Amino acid sequence: MNRPVVVIAGAGFGGLTCARALKHAPVDVLLVDRNNYHLFTPLLYQVATAILDPGEVAHPVRQLIRDLPHGDFRKAEVTGVDFDRRLLLTEEGPIHYEYLVIATGATTDYFGNRSLAETTMGLKSLDEGLAFRNHVFSQFEKSRWVTDPDERRRLLTFVVVGGGPTGVEMAGAISELIRLVLRKDYRDLNLNEVRVVLIEAAPFLLGRFDPRLREAARKSLEHKNVDVMLGSKVEAVTHEAVRLGGGIEIPTFNVLWTAGVRGSEAGAATGLPLERPSRIKVGATLQAPGHGEVFVIGDSAGVTNGGGLLPMLIPVAMQEAKQVAASITEMVDGGSPKTFLYKDPGIMATIGRNSGVAQLGRVKLSGFPGWLMWLFVHLVNVVTFRSRLIVLINWAWDYLFYDRPIRLIVRAAEPPSRSKMAP
Amino acid sequence: MNRPVVVIAGAGFGGLTCARALKHAPVDVLLVDRNNYHLFTPLLYQVATAILDPGEVAHPVRQLIRDLPHGDFRKAEVTGVDFDRRLLLTEEGPIHYEYLVIATGATTDYFGNRSLAETTMGLKSLDEGLAFRNHVFSQFEKSRWVTDPDERRRLLTFVVVGGGPTGVEMAGAISELIRLVLRKDYRDLNLNEVRVVLIEAAPFLLGRFDPRLREAARKSLEHKNVDVMLGSKVEAVTHEAVRLGGGIEIPTFNVLWTAGVRGSEAGAATGLPLERPSRIKVGATLQAPGHGEVFVIGDSAGVTNGGGLLPMLIPVAMQEAKQVAASITEMVDGGSPKTFLYKDPGIMATIGRNSGVAQLGRVKLSGFPGWLMWLFVHLVNVVTFRSRLIVLINWAWDYLFYDRPIRLIVRAAEPPSRSKMAP
Repeated sequence: MNRPVVVIAGAGFGGLTCARALKHAPVDVLLVDRNNYHLFTPLLYQVATAILDPGEVAHPVRQLIRDLPHGDFRKAEVTGVDFDRRLLLTEEGPIHYEYLVIATGATTDYFGNRSLAETTMGLKSLDEGLAFRNHVFSQFEKSRWVTDPDERRRLLTFVVVGGGPTGVEMAGAISELIRLVLRKDYRDLNLNEVRVVLIEAAPFLLGRFDPRLREAARKSLEHKNVDVMLGSKVEAVTHEAVRLGGGIEIPTFNVLWTAGVRGSEAGAATGLPLERPSRIKVGATLQAPGHGEVFVIGDSAGVTNGGGLLPMLIPVAMQEAKQVAASITEMVDGGSPKTFLYKDPGIMATIGRNSGVAQLGRVKLSGFPGWLMWLFVHLVNVVTFRSRLIVLINWAWDYLFYDRPIRLIVRAAEPPSRSKMAP
Repeated sequence: MNRPVVVIAGAGFGGLTCARALKHAPVDVLLVDRNNYHLFTPLLYQVATAILDPGEVAHPVRQLIRDLPHGDFRKAEVTGVDFDRRLLLTEEGPIHYEYLVIATGATTDYFGNRSLAETTMGLKSLDEGLAFRNHVFSQFEKSRWVTDPDERRRLLTFVVVGGGPTGVEMAGAISELIRLVLRKDYRDLNLNEVRVVLIEAAPFLLGRFDPRLREAARKSLEHKNVDVMLGSKVEAVTHEAVRLGGGIEIPTFNVLWTAGVRGSEAGAATGLPLERPSRIKVGATLQAPGHGEVFVIGDSAGVTNGGGLLPMLIPVAMQEAKQVAASITEMVDGGSPKTFLYKDPGIMATIGRNSGVAQLGRVKLSGFPGWLMWLFVHLVNVVTFRSRLIVLINWAWDYLFYDRPIRLIVRAAEPPSRSKMAP
């Protein structure tokens, strides 16, 4: 029997879920990703703040699809699609498909301000998480050599732009890292020279949450010594400062940009019509317009749902993935695809030790209960049992001893030059 | 009271042990290292072969000296010494000392063949361990795109040069990684296209060990499908092959060089007279000739012991460190330094699952008992309790499920350009 080939571009929550949901379908599945791992993005901020090592939040794709008898993986960067010849184009070569699922996710959005990409750090990939960790510890070490207090303040001021869940989690985690852990490492550290700032253009944090929870998050962050600046618009970021509207300037060498995400470059490279921000416009069946055999899911997909587009959230991607797997299974059998309906399971964010916000239907938790709920949901969802165990140990260690074990400045050496020449 | 300052260059086994041994001495201790962590080098090969994550084998120096009331740390690359003005020179600036301990360790020795540094990988630093891990998995992923079997063989042939403990451990660990773990990840992998080669110029492996143990190690490696080539001298390494004496050529893109180590650049940069290979010549008190306030320990030190120099081993470094700490304590009090005498606690090496060699005085173990001894000694010596726990889980996981969890190709992103400009 000739099994149709389903190629899935992207091994994030959408792509991986789709591959797994096709386990028993009469198709061959080929997952393609630029990385050889699936990243558990909700815990990436813990890699960036030295609570977890990469091995705890990333898992090899090949391991996660080992039990799929007709599943395989290829590591490659997606560069486009040849719809006429049904080829997914990659840097390593083209891949033929009968069905294509585009699940290439999202990337940081600088809203067209190219200089921001050079003057700020992002937090969408594991590489960026590690780079941020290296950066924080390097700045503290550098500060020990500097005699000018203004220069030291620039080194030790950490500015997070964007008051969404990532910004809130990072601001809280950086502040706790410094005040609970690093102050023990740097006995002569003057905490007056250290500053963590969270900047948000809207008049509130966590826009998707209930006003009561937004306010709880703000209070909790301020309690944790984060300078929360609401209604503040970033006008420019230079190599030594952030400039806000109203002539306010914050001297700093360290700016993390979490203020925007948009659909990935790979999605845009398909040439399909885009919704803002750079998400491929799809209908209720998640098929690309004019290409019934092409589906788009997750952050790459711009799906209208009543008022606006569905948000870029993991549950959206996973539900879309299952829907598309079901549609493909139907279509292989001569049936037709179903329409997608999103069921909102709720949203949550953590603000550091003992504080979180969770909004699950009518249930709204903040403070300690919100934090417990966050811990439980995220621990259960870490992909493998071994990682769950190690994450638990690391969390318990951090919680009990105010100690983050992974404060290393590590960067992989360049491999020998010929590895670049090898095919 | 004015406490004399002891500056220790290097936070490896020698430097760290020396700092800790000075805990109760009436001195201030300043550790200096180019990295902010102490590396447990005996387990570095497990980072390179995806058994452990960096956080398990490296620990922040500041954490390890937190309990020293008069100890501090500075991250800097050592560039030399101004003996007249008693300054340790670093890239970040000079540091004044009353006593100086040079413990800057060793680096890979290419025996003057500069091209080897470009065509081979090393395994002396954590960065190199991560780079090797990235490289192995990248080659396997690339091989899935290649249709020419010769090209695939080049990608999947791993050559380890040097039959010392590092070479033996790496060859065994790479072979097991491929045959026990990756073959499950790559269902269409043809094991005939995979090859692990260990090359040694001497007619035996593990030259420091008893002939019976050398032979046990060779047999064990061959049993694990490692091609052991003894009495083979590497004449050249190009970008696509290793050329041996007798016109033998091994086509490969992957060469790990463990065939030589020599004293670090920092040691040579002191301008002190050197013994071969690049180790600072010191007398029985470990003082630098002509500079009574300067001590040299560990791999940097060329200490004559009866026949030849003391070997570059951790126990040597640690015993020298304690001796120097005692001498400095004496000297501060007006006394004089003691002479050093090495007590050999034995040597051991592992060859993968269920196989190791250990030579402890008259006790000689090989096979399973040798392996158990190795496991026990190394687990007990991992520096912190938390790491011990996590290392144990990772080892048990690897052992029980033939599964190495950390098969990730990860490289930290470049930080924004201004971080380079910051002081």
